[in-house]
Amino acid sequence: MKDMQEKKRDSQYLYRGRILNLRRDTVELPNGKEAFREVVEHSGAVACLAVKDGRAVFVKQFRSPLNEEILEIPAGRIEKGENPEDTVVRELKEEVGIEAKRLWKLGSIFPTPGYSDEIIHLYLTDDFQSTATDPDEDEFVQAVEIALSDALALVHNGEIKDAKTICALLIYKEKYMREGK
Amino acid sequence: MKDMQEKKRDSQYLYRGRILNLRRDTVELPNGKEAFREVVEHSGAVACLAVKDGRAVFVKQFRSPLNEEILEIPAGRIEKGENPEDTVVRELKEEVGIEAKRLWKLGSIFPTPGYSDEIIHLYLTDDFQSTATDPDEDEFVQAVEIALSDALALVHNGEIKDAKTICALLIYKEKYMREGK
Repeated sequence: MKDMQEKKRDSQYLYRGRILNLRRDTVELPNGKEAFREVVEHSGAVACLAVKDGRAVFVKQFRSPLNEEILEIPAGRIEKGENPEDTVVRELKEEVGIEAKRLWKLGSIFPTPGYSDEIIHLYLTDDFQSTATDPDEDEFVQAVEIALSDALALVHNGEIKDAKTICALLIYKEKYMREGK
Repeated sequence: MKDMQEKKRDSQYLYRGRILNLRRDTVELPNGKEAFREVVEHSGAVACLAVKDGRAVFVKQFRSPLNEEILEIPAGRIEKGENPEDTVVRELKEEVGIEAKRLWKLGSIFPTPGYSDEIIHLYLTDDFQSTATDPDEDEFVQAVEIALSDALALVHNGEIKDAKTICALLIYKEKYMREGK
């Protein structure tokens, strides 16, 4: 459907920040009319499900926009020039003190394609060892180990609401968990 | 863990827009230090998986931030004062010409809790009839019907990357689909 394509006519930065930029694009719609698009630019992120002996590693973290602590898998923003797998290794070490020996790709997701270019790459590690955490001094996260079956129950009862965490858990279950396990 | 809580000390709007606002908060970290938080305010959204006879209704839509057309389930922003279920009914009619007779809640997700307060409420309808579409004149979407098994394959081969769509499909599969179906 080529006639759904928009043509960008102008683009203006409204804000350039630390973790995101905001711009306002002027686009020409397929019907020739002009419209505006508010676009959040993000450098992309990774998230990793670390699983051993039927248990997975989560972080409990205060999320300022929600004003509450929520449960997520370890994740982080890809820094400039960084390879996504290196971001995973770094974040696992910083946030939960895990040294991943092997990573598997679970997929990639667009969390909010309507107004952001962010992509989150999802990984699995099932081969890792504990090491000293290397926390960012201004980052406050608590590592929590939860049985996979309990984590899946938390998805279904609505206690886990983080999209990347739900995607990683359910894709992992579909791909790797056998019936009755 | 009370000591993960941040205290908001100041909040400043950088932008007030059509679909989002951007503010910069000054917070006090648990260690007493000051930090800044870039927060995207969003009024929330809904998305709905419409399923009949083993087939689901998707929309193909050009997403300006990604500069590509992607496959998603019908979705939309909750307008001021609108009840989420009314948003679902409105969006299904506008985008894919469906009149939903019954909705089931599949869950709610935070797509980007690190920098946004957006919540997306996920619904299922398995009882609906086709009606005339009532498209927003400046919205260009193409309705596409896909067998659920094919849609799940598109999740696993990475062709469907939209987070709300993946969450809705996989939560639906876990809750409603029987083995071999």
